[in-house]
Amino acid sequence: MERLNQLRARMASAGIDAYIITGADAHGSGYVPAYWQARTWLTGFTGSNGLAVITHDRVETNGLAAVTQGKAGLWTDGRYYIQAETELAGSGFELFKMQEPGVPLYQTFLKDNLPQGATIAFDGRTMTAQSFSMLKKELTDKNINYLLDIDLIGELWSERPPLPAKPAFAHDIKFAGKTTQEKLVAVREQMQKKNINGYLVAALDDIAWLTNIRGGDIPYTPVSYAYAFITATQAHLFIDPDKVRDLCLDNFMLHGYADLPDFLHGIAPDTLEGGKFYFNPNRTNVAMAEAIPKSFPINRNTADDIIPYMKAVKSEAELTNIRNAYKKEGVVWVRLFMWLEQILATPGELNLCEGDITRKLKALRAEQADYLHDSFSTISAYAGNAASAHYNPGEDGAQVKRDGFLLVDSGAQYLDGTTDTTRTLVVGPLTNEMRQDYTRVLQGHIAVATAVFPSGTTGSQLDLLARMPLCKAGKNFRHGTGHGIGYVLSVHEGPHNISPVQNNVALKPGMLASNEPGMYKDNEYGIRIENIICVKELQTTEYGTFLGFESLTWCPIDTHAIDYDMITVQELQYLNDYHAATYETLAPMLTEPERTWLKNTTQKINK
Amino acid sequence: MERLNQLRARMASAGIDAYIITGADAHGSGYVPAYWQARTWLTGFTGSNGLAVITHDRVETNGLAAVTQGKAGLWTDGRYYIQAETELAGSGFELFKMQEPGVPLYQTFLKDNLPQGATIAFDGRTMTAQSFSMLKKELTDKNINYLLDIDLIGELWSERPPLPAKPAFAHDIKFAGKTTQEKLVAVREQMQKKNINGYLVAALDDIAWLTNIRGGDIPYTPVSYAYAFITATQAHLFIDPDKVRDLCLDNFMLHGYADLPDFLHGIAPDTLEGGKFYFNPNRTNVAMAEAIPKSFPINRNTADDIIPYMKAVKSEAELTNIRNAYKKEGVVWVRLFMWLEQILATPGELNLCEGDITRKLKALRAEQADYLHDSFSTISAYAGNAASAHYNPGEDGAQVKRDGFLLVDSGAQYLDGTTDTTRTLVVGPLTNEMRQDYTRVLQGHIAVATAVFPSGTTGSQLDLLARMPLCKAGKNFRHGTGHGIGYVLSVHEGPHNISPVQNNVALKPGMLASNEPGMYKDNEYGIRIENIICVKELQTTEYGTFLGFESLTWCPIDTHAIDYDMITVQELQYLNDYHAATYETLAPMLTEPERTWLKNTTQKINK
Repeated sequence: MERLNQLRARMASAGIDAYIITGADAHGSGYVPAYWQARTWLTGFTGSNGLAVITHDRVETNGLAAVTQGKAGLWTDGRYYIQAETELAGSGFELFKMQEPGVPLYQTFLKDNLPQGATIAFDGRTMTAQSFSMLKKELTDKNINYLLDIDLIGELWSERPPLPAKPAFAHDIKFAGKTTQEKLVAVREQMQKKNINGYLVAALDDIAWLTNIRGGDIPYTPVSYAYAFITATQAHLFIDPDKVRDLCLDNFMLHGYADLPDFLHGIAPDTLEGGKFYFNPNRTNVAMAEAIPKSFPINRNTADDIIPYMKAVKSEAELTNIRNAYKKEGVVWVRLFMWLEQILATPGELNLCEGDITRKLKALRAEQADYLHDSFSTISAYAGNAASAHYNPGEDGAQVKRDGFLLVDSGAQYLDGTTDTTRTLVVGPLTNEMRQDYTRVLQGHIAVATAVFPSGTTGSQLDLLARMPLCKAGKNFRHGTGHGIGYVLSVHEGPHNISPVQNNVALKPGMLASNEPGMYKDNEYGIRIENIICVKELQTTEYGTFLGFESLTWCPIDTHAIDYDMITVQELQYLNDYHAATYETLAPMLTEPERTWLKNTTQKINK
Repeated sequence: MERLNQLRARMASAGIDAYIITGADAHGSGYVPAYWQARTWLTGFTGSNGLAVITHDRVETNGLAAVTQGKAGLWTDGRYYIQAETELAGSGFELFKMQEPGVPLYQTFLKDNLPQGATIAFDGRTMTAQSFSMLKKELTDKNINYLLDIDLIGELWSERPPLPAKPAFAHDIKFAGKTTQEKLVAVREQMQKKNINGYLVAALDDIAWLTNIRGGDIPYTPVSYAYAFITATQAHLFIDPDKVRDLCLDNFMLHGYADLPDFLHGIAPDTLEGGKFYFNPNRTNVAMAEAIPKSFPINRNTADDIIPYMKAVKSEAELTNIRNAYKKEGVVWVRLFMWLEQILATPGELNLCEGDITRKLKALRAEQADYLHDSFSTISAYAGNAASAHYNPGEDGAQVKRDGFLLVDSGAQYLDGTTDTTRTLVVGPLTNEMRQDYTRVLQGHIAVATAVFPSGTTGSQLDLLARMPLCKAGKNFRHGTGHGIGYVLSVHEGPHNISPVQNNVALKPGMLASNEPGMYKDNEYGIRIENIICVKELQTTEYGTFLGFESLTWCPIDTHAIDYDMITVQELQYLNDYHAATYETLAPMLTEPERTWLKNTTQKINK
């Protein structure tokens, strides 16, 4: 409450009627470093999605001395309602539950609570150009004065952590597969096709892909804070020079990370040579977008972006590396399972907590070559904890008992690939409903894995395959079937996905996606089975080109939970084939006892 | 060629640089009455899709006396390339194959062939407002002068048939289910929600639904030429008074069919009472759209249309009637099959042509109550003829032989429902490939029929189910899986469908669609299996509402072509259940020998 009062005092002296804190960093990163956690500092709320809006008391000046009460609101989604209520206590913030009926969007809240001509301020680095457009649209009739460069929290937050400053490192050509020169040529080819001659790249993974460097600024995602700007003849990189001091970046002209706005202001119009300036409003913050000279012809169509589409299609060299990384990860999971099995089989009371799994996975990965760190915070979730799809056990989490399911969703960043695997393990007796739900999830998983579809098909057209076995029982899961995945980059990477939400990006050979149907019963159990699959061309005939999937993940699927009355002969065939291939793939990397264990675990099941 | 010359002379004297003939009627009807077949009269081309553009020789007046050659082009799609080439011979028209690479759209052709400030003319009744917008957009920079009320063919066509003038008839309340008063109340409720207070209805099926009248102006579709205009307090119907002389239309103010433009010109702005004027630019011709006073606030968003969405969801009363109509149709097909079987079984040379099937179906339908006429021209296609999905045998068509497949796609208009069924019949030996393809088509059909999906799912998300068994063999069919279907109206009716082409309309309980995957091998055979299915709610649980399909069509599926090695236990279960239900449903309406035949034909198959 004291921090909120301090903020309001600053707002008053600066003539600000409403202040917005998005909680994002300057690049829309999925994981936000401490420096950027202004919203948590102010409100106490630590969830990954939360936006704060602060207004203050205001006396109407239109003759009547009516007082409009100032408000402080925090908007978050259903994953965080309970957590937010606890964490916001005493902060002076009111919780706005984003998906509840009757709860206004924050834009609508501002429209309803601000007078004509009000002043709204925020740190423009933390809001995308797209979000700002939506805000302006909602407030069209209000004649709002926008201040886009006001970091009031920065002024108040005396102990603010510094901006991340981890050194970047070269992603060796044996991993990257293509040189930055080759990538620049390919990007410029696309630029020319789209008549773009000034391409502002603001997404950190796009820049990492282009420059073949990786970094350590963001948790779980090995990227460095940077911007890039590309024309037909020049490529500029904006990055803290200390981070790249030892790197060879011959193809780029280097600038300081903070120099981009001045640079943009100063671009001569003839640099564009008749082409257009391009930036993706969904991936560029409004502070940078506003620095682009207004006189430039600008293309801001998200579908015209270039690097997201190029890097989504993994090259042959990348795929070779990825297949290797996924073998290492397969070995890690086999060892995890053996370790777990032994603990479970040891007589006496079980002393195992959710966090032990996370630590064991890290330790096992550290034995593998080229392991950087995990690709996200491991979800090790026992019983009812697994019912919330994004459960985080924290350091230790709950104790595991010899009953029901343990769900483990975890991934790694290796120099040769980013992994993401989920398995649901039987650690004790199951109910019939648990068996049936497990089998349905597996059936959905198999339906996607074995799908064959015409070229041009989108993930939205495939998603239903994953849910239908559940739907037939009146059940469903409330998340998409799959997300794209980066190459030594973000574990969630577009532009494609497999989701019921309309997505117009057709799946192309070389694109990766997760295949992770699930089933969640509140307070009881959660089930999810996830492999990463790669789109591949199967054949081209007079009827067109047909695509399907190759599994990259090699990790046994727990067969103890399968209801064999439900599963079809064809589904069992897939499972047997997958297990046989898993054994063939991993055996050469295992010790003799491990091989024996895996042989036994993956043995053919006859119906 | 003579007609073309006459047209060019008229164009010249009227100062017209390009004349367009769309081939459509004033309401975008799927079947076009003779009066409107101006394009056929001029070019000789009789296909259902064809647009003609005529320009003439032109001397550039910019100093150089260069002559630009006049052109006469006809645009049509892949179904008609061969037919068009034959029919256009000697007409002076050049064929533009719409889907071939490098062939310009007619709009682009006009852009490339017309000088600045040229005059384009056409009969505005025959072009939708949407098409005109696209034309104007393509020609933006050309300063074109558009003449929208020029019917040059009408001036030349001395023997032009009259406008259709069949009397309309009441669709009795026992068939219609709801009174026009009830429908008007429901429509006005939607209008109020959308702030529409002047709703121009131009689609004939929408008007027939609203007024509970049917007519005989359009082949196969029992509708009358009319327009309607609805406000909060008034409902106007524009129709030839002779057609409705004996009908009770108390809820409507009647006007002549041709009176709409003057009526629109004369609407007082305060009629809208602050609401907007609405018309659907995809379903309204530009002559009427242009008659709307420019000062009106107009909503022309196709997704905001009202009646198409209301009439797509069939009422309980309508569904009861439809189920009855489909039983009658089931009896018709059983009798057709018995008749065919006998002919095939009779020793000696087979004397059966494709047209015989069409005639037999009509005769059998005529024995049923409330039969009006067929709902489209029966596709009776033997062997390779069935490889073109829209084959029309004409009067007699080809001779059927005791070899391979005979495809029959046919439907009826009964007063209690519109039907559309396709069966592929074994009339002689099959190759393995034929059996396999038949089985794959059946598998796709069954996958759709048994689909269960969350509320909110669109047909675009279901379409892949129908193709995947074929895709797995590198095969596919080049049409959608299903179309909506009207109630004693058009056999093809939106706004929903089941198609790989993106369609954002979610399937709702009460919506009908065809389920008709196919497989076509050029010059050899065509396979298609089509039932009409109705979306129904299966259950609502804590995980949401789940929808599935009810089959309306009861007609045996030829089991002789099934490859039992390919079909799964679950698929066979569906087929056995469907056949048992078909017998149960139709038996009470059949004679004893027919019952015996059907019992035998639908007997359970064990794997």
